[in-house]
Parts: sequence; structure tokens; C-alpha cells
Amino acid sequence: MRIGELSKRTGVAVPTIKYYLREGMLQPGERTSPNQARYDETHIHRLRLVRALIDVGGLPVATVKEVLTSVDSPSDNIEKLLGTVQHALFPAPPPSQEAAMQEAAEQQVRAMIDELGWYCRDGHPAVSALATVLVSAQALGHGEFLDTVRRYVAIAEQIGVVDLDYIADRRFVDGMVESVVVGTVLGDTALIALRRLAQVSESAKRFPDRRRPEGQTEVSG
Amino acid sequence: MRIGELSKRTGVAVPTIKYYLREGMLQPGERTSPNQARYDETHIHRLRLVRALIDVGGLPVATVKEVLTSVDSPSDNIEKLLGTVQHALFPAPPPSQEAAMQEAAEQQVRAMIDELGWYCRDGHPAVSALATVLVSAQALGHGEFLDTVRRYVAIAEQIGVVDLDYIADRRFVDGMVESVVVGTVLGDTALIALRRLAQVSESAKRFPDRRRPEGQTEVSG
Repeated sequence: MRIGELSKRTGVAVPTIKYYLREGMLQPGERTSPNQARYDETHIHRLRLVRALIDVGGLPVATVKEVLTSVDSPSDNIEKLLGTVQHALFPAPPPSQEAAMQEAAEQQVRAMIDELGWYCRDGHPAVSALATVLVSAQALGHGEFLDTVRRYVAIAEQIGVVDLDYIADRRFVDGMVESVVVGTVLGDTALIALRRLAQVSESAKRFPDRRRPEGQTEVSG
Repeated sequence: MRIGELSKRTGVAVPTIKYYLREGMLQPGERTSPNQARYDETHIHRLRLVRALIDVGGLPVATVKEVLTSVDSPSDNIEKLLGTVQHALFPAPPPSQEAAMQEAAEQQVRAMIDELGWYCRDGHPAVSALATVLVSAQALGHGEFLDTVRRYVAIAEQIGVVDLDYIADRRFVDGMVESVVVGTVLGDTALIALRRLAQVSESAKRFPDRRRPEGQTEVSG
């Protein structure tokens, strides 16, 4: 198909498709003349992947570019693959103003990971991201948010099991790379959406009349 | 303190502080002369909150502005509060190209919510976000991602319980609004970080030698 039909079938504007082509995010079509190229189903699939990462995953274009580099370098080493995709998807947060607090929080996170018996190599961006969360909470007077994070741990373990099941199930379909990318990005959005719905639902359960009666300040469990 | 000291103590540059003042994201200081104002600890706290939402939560400035509007309109109706904060934090994704598929997926999500006995009012942005995830997965040939989403549901219920415990525990400290905002934004980042660590750890558990032996294509449970 021509670029016009590719645009129509994917809903991506022609200038945007040309931009993706220039940036190497979309593989070139088959040249049919100096000014024309032919595209096929693989281009449709790739455009859908790019749009899913941007629109559904909310990723900036630069991150999408980086993630696509891993998609284009197939590997059957799940751990290495996870590492590459996770690094692209989880850029280190800006260095904390309070270097000493940040370092102490990273030690705390690493101690927590060791205690759990989790495997984690040094320098994983999620460790510093989690440490930054703890430093911020502390600076805002929400130091006890650490207890919430500790309670999240057991929950995250269950997520990890579900996610690896998905990757393992998909490994023969189109290689694991795309499953890791799709599962990670769409999974983040799905989990955050479900978290919101669960909060509303739990709130409605605790406050069945859907609002605290006037003057009542005690929350009934 | 003067603006210079406010900048020094929070690590936020003076021009950025002035921008936040102009945008109404930071309350004005007490005027001491036509060109000078005095700031106090409440300004430090507010700047830390703004930076946490931007740096740790990764929120765009426009979203931070909207979220701060709820922080500045205290309410003791938890459900209403959750609704306001969640709407600001979860802008509806761009309308799907496939309106019919999107509508069908939203029906599917609503049916799932009803089945669970969850309470959710119409038009919650998380419903359309989740539907968009399902449509994208389907379009990418990952239709069975729906099974993963179904498995996430029980996990999300546990997150909702932890989150409401946190909000309830904090309700006398500084009003619930800030706790809802901080818990939601820092919690998103913490959960995503823990998800990454749990994936790596689960992957290391399933593949103890940390890589699949050459030529082996079967994944051992």
C-alpha cells in the first residue's frame, strides 16, 4: 500500500509517518520509484506499536525510540531483555538535592531487597527511583509512607509472577521482546487504572453513604 | 526568608520560583517592599510538593497546576476528593481511532467492574484508560493480555486497601487532600519501581543461571 493508505488504516497522519521514517522508528518501505514506496502489514503493526507506546503508555518520543531499539535487537535472554527495556522505560529521576539523604534511602531500599531475598543487580534505575520517592515523602513530612511502600512489596511480588507468566506464554508468538515492551507499558497503564478504580471502590465500601456525615471526623473501619 | 534563601533551601532556581508565583502554584510571600517579599516554611513545603509531583511523579506542569487546585480546596468527602485528584491525574487518553472497538472495550471493563462488585460511577477516566489498553493490545495481536488484566484485578484490590489505610491514617495530620495527592503520585512511582524489581527477581528465580542455555527454547516453570 501507499503511505496514504497506511495513514488511513492506522489513523497516523502522513507527516507523522514521515517523521517516524526519518527517525528510524518505522522501517523504510520498499522503493517503487524515487519518490514512492510500498508499505505492508509489518508497517501497520509497527505504527500501532509506536502509537500504543505514545498514546496509551504516555511515553515521550525519545523513550519510544530507545525502546524500539531493543525491539529491533532480538534476544532470548529474558533478564538482559528486561534490563534493557526497563532502563529505557525508567530513566533515572533527576539527582536529588539532598545527596546524603538519597544515598541513605538507596541503602534502605537495597537492604529491603536483600531482606526479601530478591535478586537485583547494582545500579538498577528502580532502586534510585524508589529511593527518590522515600526522600520526597520524608521531605514532605510523609515519612510513614515507607510503611505503605513495605506493604506494596508483597503486592509487587504477585505482579511479577503474572508478568513473567505473560512473557513466558508469549515467547513463541513474536519473540519475547515485543511482549516485554507491550506487557510492561500497557501493564503500567492497566495497573494504575485498576489502582484508581480499586481506591474508589474501597472508599465506597468504607463510607457506604458515600460521604462522611456532617461533623463526623472518625473514619469507621 | 528572601526568595534567594527559599531557592537555596529547596534547590529550586529563582526564575522557576517566580514562574510558580506567577502561575499561582506557589502562594505569594508577605510583601515587605514593592520589590521584595518574605517567605516562610509553608513556601518551602509547597515548593517541595510541586517538585515531588514534577520530578518524582513525572507530571507535566499543567497537571500539577490542576492537582494543586484540589489541594487548595480542602474537602473531607474522601470520595469526592479521590474523584477530583484522579481526574486531574488521569487525563482521558486520546480518543481511539476505532470508536466501535473502544466502546465495546469500555462495556467489557464496566461488566468486569460490575462482576467484581466494585463501585464506580459512570465516566471515570480509568474505565476508558483501561479500555484503550485492551483495544491497543488487541490491535497489536496481544488480545490475551486481557487475561493478565483480569489477574491484576485481585492485586489492585489489595493496593486499594493499603491506599485507603494510608489516607485514613493521615487524615488528621494535614488534611486528607495532600495525603491523597502524595499517596497517589508517589505511590504510582513506587508501585511501578517495585513492579520492575519484582519482574527482575521473578525472572532470576525462573532462570537461576540467569540466562537460557544455548539452543534451549523451553522455559522451565
